[in-house]
Amino acid sequence: MNFMSFFGKRGESASVAKNRLQILLAHERSDNGTDAALISSLREDILAVVKKHISIDPDAVRLEMDRDGDVTTLGIDIELPGSTRD
Amino acid sequence: MNFMSFFGKRGESASVAKNRLQILLAHERSDNGTDAALISSLREDILAVVKKHISIDPDAVRLEMDRDGDVTTLGIDIELPGSTRD
Repeated sequence: MNFMSFFGKRGESASVAKNRLQILLAHERSDNGTDAALISSLREDILAVVKKHISIDPDAVRLEMDRDGDVTTLGIDIELPGSTRD
Repeated sequence: MNFMSFFGKRGESASVAKNRLQILLAHERSDNGTDAALISSLREDILAVVKKHISIDPDAVRLEMDRDGDVTTLGIDIELPGSTRD
């Protein structure tokens, strides 16, 4: 699996892509359950977890949620400050 | 951004791809910091968060960690049971 493609056009955007964390959640299920609610709830908890490890500016977090049939995806893109607390 | 490509060959694997959650963390930074340690630590905490929302069998969790230059990626693939606790 080519995870690098997740970052898109790396060659072009290398200079602006430094110091960031991207998180992608993709949930696929066979019935019509509350997958959007699950993803939304996971989003909150995962952001809380990330904040425990890294100082993040709420304004530097971008979220993108998408639904296509039985697949719900959530992308979290976080621009990190120069220094981290890890 | 085409999140669907994260699932790979959907047409072929649709029958076995039901009820699963995939999480991808990708961390890119400009210096030689402890990004692998950060990702590893995020992995533990995110798995704990997922367990709060969904009953998961530890044997149904697959992890894939990869490093390419200044980008560290972690893929977490979780096969979900038929019912969820959300």
